Amino acid sequence: MIWNSVAELENRQGRLYFDGCSVEELAREFGTPLYVYSENRIRANYRRLLEAYQKEYPRFAAYYAVKANNNPAIIKLLAQLGAGADVACVNEIRMAQAAGVPPEKILYSGVYNSDRDLRYAVENGVRLNLEDVSQLDRLEAIGIPSFLCFRINPGIGASGIEGLIFAGPDAKFGIIERDIERAYAKAKTLGVQTFGIHMMTGSNILSVSYFEQVVEKLLDLAGPIAQKLNIQFDFIDIGGSLGVPYRPGEEELDLDAVARTVVGKLRQKLSQYNMGEPLLLHEPGRFLVCDAGILLASVTSIKDGHKRFVGLDAGMHTLLRPALYGAYHHILYAGDLSAACDTPLNLVGQVCENTDQFAKDRPLPANVKVGDLFAILNVGSYGFCMSSQYNSQPRAAEVLVANGRASLIREREGYQNIIQGTRIPPHLIGEA
Amino acid sequence: MIWNSVAELENRQGRLYFDGCSVEELAREFGTPLYVYSENRIRANYRRLLEAYQKEYPRFAAYYAVKANNNPAIIKLLAQLGAGADVACVNEIRMAQAAGVPPEKILYSGVYNSDRDLRYAVENGVRLNLEDVSQLDRLEAIGIPSFLCFRINPGIGASGIEGLIFAGPDAKFGIIERDIERAYAKAKTLGVQTFGIHMMTGSNILSVSYFEQVVEKLLDLAGPIAQKLNIQFDFIDIGGSLGVPYRPGEEELDLDAVARTVVGKLRQKLSQYNMGEPLLLHEPGRFLVCDAGILLASVTSIKDGHKRFVGLDAGMHTLLRPALYGAYHHILYAGDLSAACDTPLNLVGQVCENTDQFAKDRPLPANVKVGDLFAILNVGSYGFCMSSQYNSQPRAAEVLVANGRASLIREREGYQNIIQGTRIPPHLIGEA
Repeated sequence: MIWNSVAELENRQGRLYFDGCSVEELAREFGTPLYVYSENRIRANYRRLLEAYQKEYPRFAAYYAVKANNNPAIIKLLAQLGAGADVACVNEIRMAQAAGVPPEKILYSGVYNSDRDLRYAVENGVRLNLEDVSQLDRLEAIGIPSFLCFRINPGIGASGIEGLIFAGPDAKFGIIERDIERAYAKAKTLGVQTFGIHMMTGSNILSVSYFEQVVEKLLDLAGPIAQKLNIQFDFIDIGGSLGVPYRPGEEELDLDAVARTVVGKLRQKLSQYNMGEPLLLHEPGRFLVCDAGILLASVTSIKDGHKRFVGLDAGMHTLLRPALYGAYHHILYAGDLSAACDTPLNLVGQVCENTDQFAKDRPLPANVKVGDLFAILNVGSYGFCMSSQYNSQPRAAEVLVANGRASLIREREGYQNIIQGTRIPPHLIGEA
Repeated sequence: MIWNSVAELENRQGRLYFDGCSVEELAREFGTPLYVYSENRIRANYRRLLEAYQKEYPRFAAYYAVKANNNPAIIKLLAQLGAGADVACVNEIRMAQAAGVPPEKILYSGVYNSDRDLRYAVENGVRLNLEDVSQLDRLEAIGIPSFLCFRINPGIGASGIEGLIFAGPDAKFGIIERDIERAYAKAKTLGVQTFGIHMMTGSNILSVSYFEQVVEKLLDLAGPIAQKLNIQFDFIDIGGSLGVPYRPGEEELDLDAVARTVVGKLRQKLSQYNMGEPLLLHEPGRFLVCDAGILLASVTSIKDGHKRFVGLDAGMHTLLRPALYGAYHHILYAGDLSAACDTPLNLVGQVCENTDQFAKDRPLPANVKVGDLFAILNVGSYGFCMSSQYNSQPRAAEVLVANGRASLIREREGYQNIIQGTRIPPHLIGEA
């Protein structure tokens, strides 16, 4: 295996293949920089998550966190596999609808929703996950749905690789502990009939015990409310957070152990609070698509300065995570996988900022030359969706590959996309 | 004055006006989030830079760094004022050409250029600023221009507010000292007739002595080369770096002092090395447009959690600098400038990341309510051009204002722009 358990990444006579496609042929056909996603890897990730959980707890479902990768083809693929959708805004509701996700499997976790956002969700029968009691007052004017979920800020937070904390005093998300009961009581008074409870406290977690803590905390909040207010929870949503290893040597998450531990704690707490058997929800984004995506980039220029700098046609505008979070992405020299990686290189982009570096002093082959191809791994999540046109650079194309066949799922941008929608005011055109 | 020397920001009976336009009316007419640029402030910034330098050294010119704000209307405005263009890629060359900048006033400082990039520049008669000797070899195959500039990495670097270092051993930019003479010698051998020399070592500098150091270093590199190789420098380009205060209380750059000091050192060194009177170039980006831009955002929701969080319809997708650099942007409560700012608020966006916060514990009025308008200052540079569609959020509109009149210079995006260019492969449409 070239990279963790990603069977779709293959070494065929020293050359890199992805889901049966030669990455060099992909680069020739579609150009670079190019995002490539493996359909089989996404299917496999979804399947192993479902299998791990459903053998422990049949009433389990996964809602895909669309924010991780909002290409319509990816959403469609996961919708067809049966995934629901965790959506962050009205446009993501629209995208989930377009992919055929039924409204009752779309959970709208909007942050700081406007009235217009709330109205769209209610009118479209989408399930709402509210993060503040004040939103209930606003729903009164719009229409009270029969179902409501609240997002809890449990005052604890954890993060894997980068500083993505989703809970704690400085976190903007969720209802704090003292307001939770009031939220559910008010919703019940307003006529809400069935409920969910949700918690998202971290991102990219690789530790089993963390998920046990989340379930325990969430049920110890939900249980007393269920009893005191005499309400039934339709689902318990433990958020996303399922991690993916980014660095060589990092252990993959033991999915069977996570499922066993989470479900063990869940069953214990459901029994303790007499809560029946609600649906258990996960909202994986990164977990489903991260290692199913690679970014192909070509060498534009090589400079021997104080160090050896290898310039790529991808940059921080293409993949922001290294600049934004200091995130590590493993990088393969796609043209010769057998070459000895013994020379420290800086892989950099063409953007006029020094933060635009994918790797510093990374051991790679010494004989890299202009035109060579690199594959940046683990970019299926938070890759294209965070890209920009910074430095007037067009955004990359996206391709979905499966069993040796490639489908273009987003066209490459060009100059016209940079100036799209712009106009020169007449008084400037007229001026000398 | 509300903010530094920006006369175009006015308080009229407690309400905010920008270049004669009520920002509340702008928000009503064009919606929010909205980037608004003051034409008069851009004109004033350009004029005072030129005046400060030209009274000391008539052979001074300013080339606008297009990367700071690449809206065609802004480029056109500066081109009409007489500015040249500092461009970072082929698309920016095209934009400068479209704005009517003559090719000899377009300086192409591409980083890690491909052959295609170099060919476009050469064929269009644009002046090249190379950052590596190896690019000369590649030019041989494409065509040797009569003029060439080299970008020097002087091994020193400075930065103002954020970690934007452009020189030093880990910097990807420029030719290191040991290779400079070789670069010019080779270019001369290849037939280049006139030369420039360029150095860009920092960003957003507010210290006068820094610019003196830059000029001294650059001339102490250029002088011996001019003498030894018997070449004439057509221009000395000291880059951008002219800073703008972002925080209240920060001193504005003393432009007259900068010009006097820079030119004093320049004249001394030109005389010392017998270099005649070359053109002195600056490449201001931020300095010309930063404080000429504000971002209007409306309150979508307010939550009293562990803190009071005020949600805005702008977020890290609209303005990345706070998330990327931890950058401070001053923020005005536009509807009531006289309100006491005595309550610590967190101003946050709608993106599902906790990094999406424009201000933490910022003293602002307590009675902020849904629908209220905030103005985020100093966003004319590195604002829209770094924006993305993260979390499936459309990008903002841009408006140019002058003397009470507003012109839309970029349309607001919508849902169609999020899914633009995407397609679902037939085998996924067909599937059950």
